[in-house]
Amino acid sequence: MSQLETALSAADENLPSSLETLFELVKIPSISTDPEYKDECQRAGTYLSDYLNTLGFEASVRPTSGHPMVVGHYNGAGEDAPHVLFYGHYDVQPVDPIELWDDDPFDPKIQERNGSKVITGRGTSDDKGQLMTFVEACRAYKETAGKLPCNIVILFEGEEESGSPSLQPFLESHKDELKADFALVCDTGMWDKQTPAIPTSLRGLLGEEVTIHAADRDLHSGLYGGSAANPITILSRIIGDIHDADGRITIDGFYEGVEETPDHIKEMWKGLGQSDQDFLGEIGLSENFGEKGRSYKELTWARPTAEINGIIGGYTDDGFKTVIPAEASAKISFRLVGKQDPDKLRVAFRKFVNDRLPSDCTASFKEHGASGGIQLSYDSPLIKKAMSALSDEWPKPAVLVGGGGSIPIVGDFQTFLGMDSLLVGFGLADDQLHSPNEKYELNSFHKGIRSWIRILHELSGN
Amino acid sequence: MSQLETALSAADENLPSSLETLFELVKIPSISTDPEYKDECQRAGTYLSDYLNTLGFEASVRPTSGHPMVVGHYNGAGEDAPHVLFYGHYDVQPVDPIELWDDDPFDPKIQERNGSKVITGRGTSDDKGQLMTFVEACRAYKETAGKLPCNIVILFEGEEESGSPSLQPFLESHKDELKADFALVCDTGMWDKQTPAIPTSLRGLLGEEVTIHAADRDLHSGLYGGSAANPITILSRIIGDIHDADGRITIDGFYEGVEETPDHIKEMWKGLGQSDQDFLGEIGLSENFGEKGRSYKELTWARPTAEINGIIGGYTDDGFKTVIPAEASAKISFRLVGKQDPDKLRVAFRKFVNDRLPSDCTASFKEHGASGGIQLSYDSPLIKKAMSALSDEWPKPAVLVGGGGSIPIVGDFQTFLGMDSLLVGFGLADDQLHSPNEKYELNSFHKGIRSWIRILHELSGN
Repeated sequence: MSQLETALSAADENLPSSLETLFELVKIPSISTDPEYKDECQRAGTYLSDYLNTLGFEASVRPTSGHPMVVGHYNGAGEDAPHVLFYGHYDVQPVDPIELWDDDPFDPKIQERNGSKVITGRGTSDDKGQLMTFVEACRAYKETAGKLPCNIVILFEGEEESGSPSLQPFLESHKDELKADFALVCDTGMWDKQTPAIPTSLRGLLGEEVTIHAADRDLHSGLYGGSAANPITILSRIIGDIHDADGRITIDGFYEGVEETPDHIKEMWKGLGQSDQDFLGEIGLSENFGEKGRSYKELTWARPTAEINGIIGGYTDDGFKTVIPAEASAKISFRLVGKQDPDKLRVAFRKFVNDRLPSDCTASFKEHGASGGIQLSYDSPLIKKAMSALSDEWPKPAVLVGGGGSIPIVGDFQTFLGMDSLLVGFGLADDQLHSPNEKYELNSFHKGIRSWIRILHELSGN
Repeated sequence: MSQLETALSAADENLPSSLETLFELVKIPSISTDPEYKDECQRAGTYLSDYLNTLGFEASVRPTSGHPMVVGHYNGAGEDAPHVLFYGHYDVQPVDPIELWDDDPFDPKIQERNGSKVITGRGTSDDKGQLMTFVEACRAYKETAGKLPCNIVILFEGEEESGSPSLQPFLESHKDELKADFALVCDTGMWDKQTPAIPTSLRGLLGEEVTIHAADRDLHSGLYGGSAANPITILSRIIGDIHDADGRITIDGFYEGVEETPDHIKEMWKGLGQSDQDFLGEIGLSENFGEKGRSYKELTWARPTAEINGIIGGYTDDGFKTVIPAEASAKISFRLVGKQDPDKLRVAFRKFVNDRLPSDCTASFKEHGASGGIQLSYDSPLIKKAMSALSDEWPKPAVLVGGGGSIPIVGDFQTFLGMDSLLVGFGLADDQLHSPNEKYELNSFHKGIRSWIRILHELSGN
């Protein structure tokens, strides 16, 4: 057997123990948005660092002002070998609404779902299962070849799901330690179960929280209703104003830096199949909600959005309370594409809100992260090698797609370390990311490990 | 001393023990909207029933399918004496947001606030303090005269703050027991600290809860945003549509049965003083929010409204979650005046919502009570007697006003028992009803007791 084949077959044999390691990691409820889980985030970081050390990395947990980073180095591939940085995140989304989970989100299991074996639990797909595919690929390669084919620096973050407040300062202050030829980022998905995909465009994210303040106290809606300002009504009107009748966002200057997708790319996307009805049908819907006259692929891969992610105000428990609350608030995220400037748009959004307030009401704002969109080159050698390695592993050849979700790290690597990123991941559309009953296909995990072995091998030119 | 003077002076001497009785009642957290407090509601009912029995009433706690009623009878005034029904409610509003209370809401205290002695705690003003003014008036009269001047049936409800689901069936099935010449209802306020007021118009209430359902699960706003319907956005747009630019409600047929207030009544209201700026200034606001070109008195006493009392959807805890939720919901109340038909308007509201849904989304509704507005005659003998008695007790003569809050019982007494109601209460605008730090003026309690002694005496023609 060739070295590649030997490593692939080691990965197959390792699978049971690879799953055990993943399960231990998933069992740690490392919810980064909730301060109550701070210690669990630390524990997840330590677990990964310890494990990397057993594989021949020099790894350690690095404190930040938030949740820690894990950094691991492997430099035994020789001077001529490529030097790559691998990025993943060990933090996970909150689990609410917990009552909709069929199982404990932090007690992973292998189960049969829709005819596939899947690994269930929060973080199995986003991103613990994914990052472990790379780690386990390194393990199998090292075990069989005695060394890795590339020099590798691993960076695991613990704040990806909460806007990555510590990431940029950390990249800035660890530039020399982290700089590599390019980055590998494993936080994306397959096109379908047979077809691996490499996203070449990614949407950025601008997060805002707005609170409308009206009276200085909660009011009885009978005594004051009709006269006193209702902050829920004001907030709803503002939200209602964000889109026009054609679904376009009305915030001043919002579309500056947004380019139309070239026709040949749209044609390629069309060739991938999956109609709007297919895509929406899977989630119980049937018509696109955003800008009129565009396909779901364009809407989610290449167009900016404004989404209300949360809203709260007044009495929301069982029963009824005839109250006009003193305030109401909403969490709003904007997906950004092309050259949209998140900082400018934050200012424009705040002006948009303030322009719509009655003179005796005020708005306060809280920022939740900002990153621009990413557009990668379609034909770099790096992407070609990855396409080739992935096409060898999976039943169908790899395809180039767009990514609807933000992976701000890609922009940060560009800005702070001057590195391009190769995005490879093995998630599927029905993995229930950020939702109850998150899962990761057992096949994604297994062939994901094998895919990274092939990619590392291909990159090294062996 | 006349009998009246003797009874008034007994009320003065009784004050410390009257307060003790009230405090014991306030200490019972009888929150009717929250099923967790079911036993506490029962306890409050039993407490009142036991106390009425010590005063010479034949009282008992009557089970309903919700919280119990308390009914007490006194028939010792003689055949020629008037027969009155007194109504109050022993249930209270929830206390959230609890962190804004300066003291435990269920540990009442007498404190100095803005130069007045006040009784603090949930329900002190709405409605435990108010109902106790009547009970303690009966006690003082009975102690001194040996009997009460009127035959009295007392009815205390335990579901006023949660839409009174059991009230109508109870009135219907206890018609003969409860029927009196007229009702006395103590759930209203003074015009100001010196001036008692009798409301002659009251707004009704239509409560609705609407939930918008979009995708069949929570979605990642990156992967689906731009394509999948966002129920928070849809709900906000619908709420934003309820009023037009002039603050008028746009629901079809909404203003059917609404009459303009006669000019002379508006003039009388104007003569009461307190400008819009005064009224709104007290709560940190400065301009009317509702229909343009009307005073706050007209807006809150004589015009219908649509108020959002609560809204919730998506992620609302600390931090941020890039989710498009499967659903979002709002609690909405309409204040009704004149001859607006609540049942017709419920249908019209639901149609209004359904007309604004994308074809792949649905709305579900939950009803929370319905009662029409009330308009009493300005010059009945009953109101004249009450005006005279109140004017004797307080520094300034009593005035006729409108009431912004719903007192559905008044309509129910009319419908089920064929009785008019006299509305007398001693609350003040700054009592923080339904808000943190609710209070009742010690003076309202003391002179309230004295006022009822005078009213009962006047009604009996003694």
